[in-house]
Amino acid sequence: MGAVAGPEIERLVQLLARLPGLGPRSARRAALHLIKKREALMIPLSSAMQVALEKVQVCKTCGNIDTQSPCTVCTDPRRDPSIIVVVADVADLWALERANATQGRYHVLGATLSPLDGVGPQDLTIEALVARAHEAQVHEVILALNATVDGQTTAHYITDLLQDANVKVTRLAHGVPVGGELDYLDEGTLSAAMRQRTLF
Amino acid sequence: MGAVAGPEIERLVQLLARLPGLGPRSARRAALHLIKKREALMIPLSSAMQVALEKVQVCKTCGNIDTQSPCTVCTDPRRDPSIIVVVADVADLWALERANATQGRYHVLGATLSPLDGVGPQDLTIEALVARAHEAQVHEVILALNATVDGQTTAHYITDLLQDANVKVTRLAHGVPVGGELDYLDEGTLSAAMRQRTLF
Repeated sequence: MGAVAGPEIERLVQLLARLPGLGPRSARRAALHLIKKREALMIPLSSAMQVALEKVQVCKTCGNIDTQSPCTVCTDPRRDPSIIVVVADVADLWALERANATQGRYHVLGATLSPLDGVGPQDLTIEALVARAHEAQVHEVILALNATVDGQTTAHYITDLLQDANVKVTRLAHGVPVGGELDYLDEGTLSAAMRQRTLF
Repeated sequence: MGAVAGPEIERLVQLLARLPGLGPRSARRAALHLIKKREALMIPLSSAMQVALEKVQVCKTCGNIDTQSPCTVCTDPRRDPSIIVVVADVADLWALERANATQGRYHVLGATLSPLDGVGPQDLTIEALVARAHEAQVHEVILALNATVDGQTTAHYITDLLQDANVKVTRLAHGVPVGGELDYLDEGTLSAAMRQRTLF
């Protein structure tokens, strides 16, 4: 293809292929689509990326990504400053916001502890979290981490570090997903859902 | 999410979601990935798109996409000028080039005839193809179109138009895909493969 379309298009395809969700084949389709939809898509996307490059930054308080720092969530007076919701990644923050799941503020760790992948505590923003948890206004730290081995390891590690802070440390409930069928759930989830059952 | 991440990121997500192969969810992941890999991915991709915007054009002869017109294939002296391979889309041209399937030159129709979608002959580059087929150097037109109803309708339509031209009109063979298992093939393909069997 390089010989046919020239190195410029080849480079565009290769870079697009590095986006999550796009492989070599779909990157080629995406590149062609961009070239065909020059006015409607390639020019707007190119300028949207320029704007993002200029404006987007990481919130110095919580690690969220925004066009301002401190971010919109941290500066929103309607958000409850007594609650810090700890997430691994900005994607998780976005997911919780879409669900309108909390009125608290956030703390983005950047990753979860993963000894096998060489991710240690120093790679996460745990130190900043501990400092925030010691602020007088903070009463609860909610660990909204994945229910995976790495996520739960990270949760335990943080819980230990927060023993000195005067905060309640909580985590998300395990249970049956809304719309989920019992028959398809694993035993661990079913047992947890039974233990944590609530009044109807 | 708009309220969390700001309209700039939201716009980036929406534009990414219009790429084929990316939905709303994977577009969010792609946008986050771009923002995180600012130096390694977002800046190079942004500049690759700028280069493509400046340089990429449609070949006036065959409809291929390239940084020059006539394109690299049309100007390559090693390509056989007596053969025109007709494809619906540049993606098909790329696929044939990856397979190194032909030494001929190409003609990109831009689409296939599709009455239900309102795609008629005037939407395709059929007129230019007929003109090219009448050039003295051209001896064969290979219809490399999809084996779908629309593809075969287009093939028949073009074959009719080329009756006056002094060219052999051929089409790709039907048959068993390389590595394919007979048990999973449809009856039409099996019958065609049997009819078009070749000496071993």
